[in-house]
Amino acid sequence: MTSNTQILLAETPRGKLETAHFQVQKGEVPALDDGQVLVRSVLLSLDAANRAWMQGATYKSAVEAGQVMHGYAIGEVVESRSSKFSSGDVVVGELGWQEYAAMNAKVLRPVGDHRPLTHHHSVLGIAGLTAHHGLLAVVGVNEGETLLVSAAGGSVGSLVGQIGKIKGARVIGVAGGPEKCRWVEEKLGFDACIDYKNGSLSKALRQHCPDGVDVYFDNVGGDILQAALFAMNLNGRISCCGAVSQYDSATPKGPLGVPGLLVTKRLTMRGFIAGDFPDRDADALRDLDEWASSGKLKVVEDVLDGLESAPQGLIGLLAGENRGKRMVRVGADPA
Amino acid sequence: MTSNTQILLAETPRGKLETAHFQVQKGEVPALDDGQVLVRSVLLSLDAANRAWMQGATYKSAVEAGQVMHGYAIGEVVESRSSKFSSGDVVVGELGWQEYAAMNAKVLRPVGDHRPLTHHHSVLGIAGLTAHHGLLAVVGVNEGETLLVSAAGGSVGSLVGQIGKIKGARVIGVAGGPEKCRWVEEKLGFDACIDYKNGSLSKALRQHCPDGVDVYFDNVGGDILQAALFAMNLNGRISCCGAVSQYDSATPKGPLGVPGLLVTKRLTMRGFIAGDFPDRDADALRDLDEWASSGKLKVVEDVLDGLESAPQGLIGLLAGENRGKRMVRVGADPA
Repeated sequence: MTSNTQILLAETPRGKLETAHFQVQKGEVPALDDGQVLVRSVLLSLDAANRAWMQGATYKSAVEAGQVMHGYAIGEVVESRSSKFSSGDVVVGELGWQEYAAMNAKVLRPVGDHRPLTHHHSVLGIAGLTAHHGLLAVVGVNEGETLLVSAAGGSVGSLVGQIGKIKGARVIGVAGGPEKCRWVEEKLGFDACIDYKNGSLSKALRQHCPDGVDVYFDNVGGDILQAALFAMNLNGRISCCGAVSQYDSATPKGPLGVPGLLVTKRLTMRGFIAGDFPDRDADALRDLDEWASSGKLKVVEDVLDGLESAPQGLIGLLAGENRGKRMVRVGADPA
Repeated sequence: MTSNTQILLAETPRGKLETAHFQVQKGEVPALDDGQVLVRSVLLSLDAANRAWMQGATYKSAVEAGQVMHGYAIGEVVESRSSKFSSGDVVVGELGWQEYAAMNAKVLRPVGDHRPLTHHHSVLGIAGLTAHHGLLAVVGVNEGETLLVSAAGGSVGSLVGQIGKIKGARVIGVAGGPEKCRWVEEKLGFDACIDYKNGSLSKALRQHCPDGVDVYFDNVGGDILQAALFAMNLNGRISCCGAVSQYDSATPKGPLGVPGLLVTKRLTMRGFIAGDFPDRDADALRDLDEWASSGKLKVVEDVLDGLESAPQGLIGLLAGENRGKRMVRVGADPA
C-alpha cells in the first residue's frame, strides 16, 4: 500500500474523446482525516455519463482537467476513522479512477450481501435502477404498446427492453451493426433490433413499428431521437435517459420537430437520473433481483481488466463496442 | 345571397408566407344536403396554427393548395336542413375563409349567450382554453414560481401571463420590440417583458429570472426555446403550445440541449392543444369568465375588417404585429 495508481483527465476534450486526454500517475495512498475511510477500489463502473461530466456541470459538478477522473466504483474499506464503516466492509461511491480513495464515510453506501459483486454495478446498480425507474416510473409502459429502445445492447438499454417484454410490450431496439442487432434479438429477446448504421432509420421504423411508437426510451439523442419523434403515436411518451450521440460531438445538433411534433402529437419528453426516485428504489431492486434470479432478465456484463484499461474502455463504450454493463476490474474481490 | 367570396390557398408556401400564396374568388353560395346548415360567417379567427396547417397533416389534415383556406369562425345559421340548428342560431366551427359555408350540423357547436361575440374567439374561445389548460392542466404553476411566457403579447401568451399572476407566480414575458414589451408590462401586468430583438436573450433571462425559470410556456420554439432550456431550474416544466418561429422558416432548427438538458435538469416538455381536456372545459370557462368580468384578466382583441384582410392579417400575426387575439370581421353581428 505505498503507491496509488490514478488516472487524471489531463485535458478537457472538445470533440472526440481520445486516450491522449488522460494521464496515468502514481500517487501516494492518501492519509485519512476524522470521519474518513480508505477504500481500495475493486470494480469501476464505466458509463456514457462519464463523458457528459467533462462538458461542464450536469447533475454533478464537472470533471476539470488535472483532476482524477470521476467514476463510481465498488471497493473495500481497508482503514477507517469513521464509526460508520469498518475494515472489510464493501461500499460503493464516487471513488474516481484510482486504486485507493480517502472518502468521507457519509458519501458512501454499503453494498448488500448479493454476489457476484459485479451485479451491484449492473442489474442491482445504477444501470438497473436507471432502466426500472426510467421505464416504469418516468413514462410507464402498458401491455400491447410498442416500446422503442436505443442503445439496445448497452447497460441500460439491454435491461429496459427486457423489462418492456416482461410488462407485455412489443419491444424494438436500435443498435449499431448487424451482429449486435442479431444478438439483441436472439439473446435478449427483443422482438426486433434495427441497425442504425444500415440504411434509412425512418424506413426501418415504419417497417418494424407499423402501429407507431408509444414509448421511446432514449439513450442517445441526435438523429435517432429525431427519427423516433416522427414515428411516435399521439400521446406518446419519451423517457430521456442520455444523449450519448452528442457527448463526443464538436457540433451537436438539436432534433427538428421539437417542439412542433410535441404539440401536434401531444408528446411528453421527460428527463431523469437514477437517483430521482429514492422511494421506489427498494421495490425496483426487489423486482430486478427476482427477474434476474428466475432467468426472466438476462444480466449481461462486460468486465475489462485493470485500471489502465479504463480510458480505452470508455472510448470504446462511447463508440458502442460494449454489450451490457461495462466495468473495469481494478482489484481482487474482498476475501 | 348570390355570391360567396372565398379565399383559397393558391400555393403551398415553402418559406415565408406571402399574400401571393392566396387567391380571392367569387364562388356560389352552396346548396345544402340533408343534415347540413348554411352559415354566414361573422368573425374569423386568425391563429399561428393556420400557418402550421399548410406544412402538412398536424392534429388535423393539411390545407392543400387550391382549397378554401381553413379557419375557425363564428357565424349565423341562415338556412337549415338539420334538426340541430335553426335560422338565427349562432355557431362556431371550421367555416374556412369564406362568407358562406355549407356545414354538417354535427361539426358545429352553438355559441353561448355571452356578448360581445368576439369573446368567443378570445377569452372564452380557443385562445382562452389554450391558455388555461396549457398552463394549469399541462404543467401547473405554483405561488412564487417563476413563469416565462413567449409571444407574451399574443392571443394566448397575453392570457397565460395574466393567469400566472392570478396564481401568484412571478411572470416574465418575451416579445418583440420595446413598445410591445412596455405594453405587456404596463397593460397586462407582467413583472417584466424581455425584448428578444434587443441583445442577448440569455443575458436578459439571467437578469430577469435570477432564481431561474420553473415553468416555461412556449409559443414559439427555436432560439427562444433554446435560451429558455438553459435558464430552466431543476425539475422545470415546459408547456409546448406552438412553434411559430419555425412555421415560416425554410430551414427550421432543433434546440440544442434536447435531450441533454432534459436529463441533467430533469425537465419535462409536454405538447398539447386546446381540445385535449374536454372534462376541464366548463371549469376553465367559468374561471375565465369570472376573471374577465371582475377585471382581473384584461381581454385584448385585435379585430381586422373584411374577409379580404385575412391574408395580410395572418402574415402580420406570424411577424408578431398583433396584440392579443387577432380576428377578422367578415360580416355584421346577428341581429
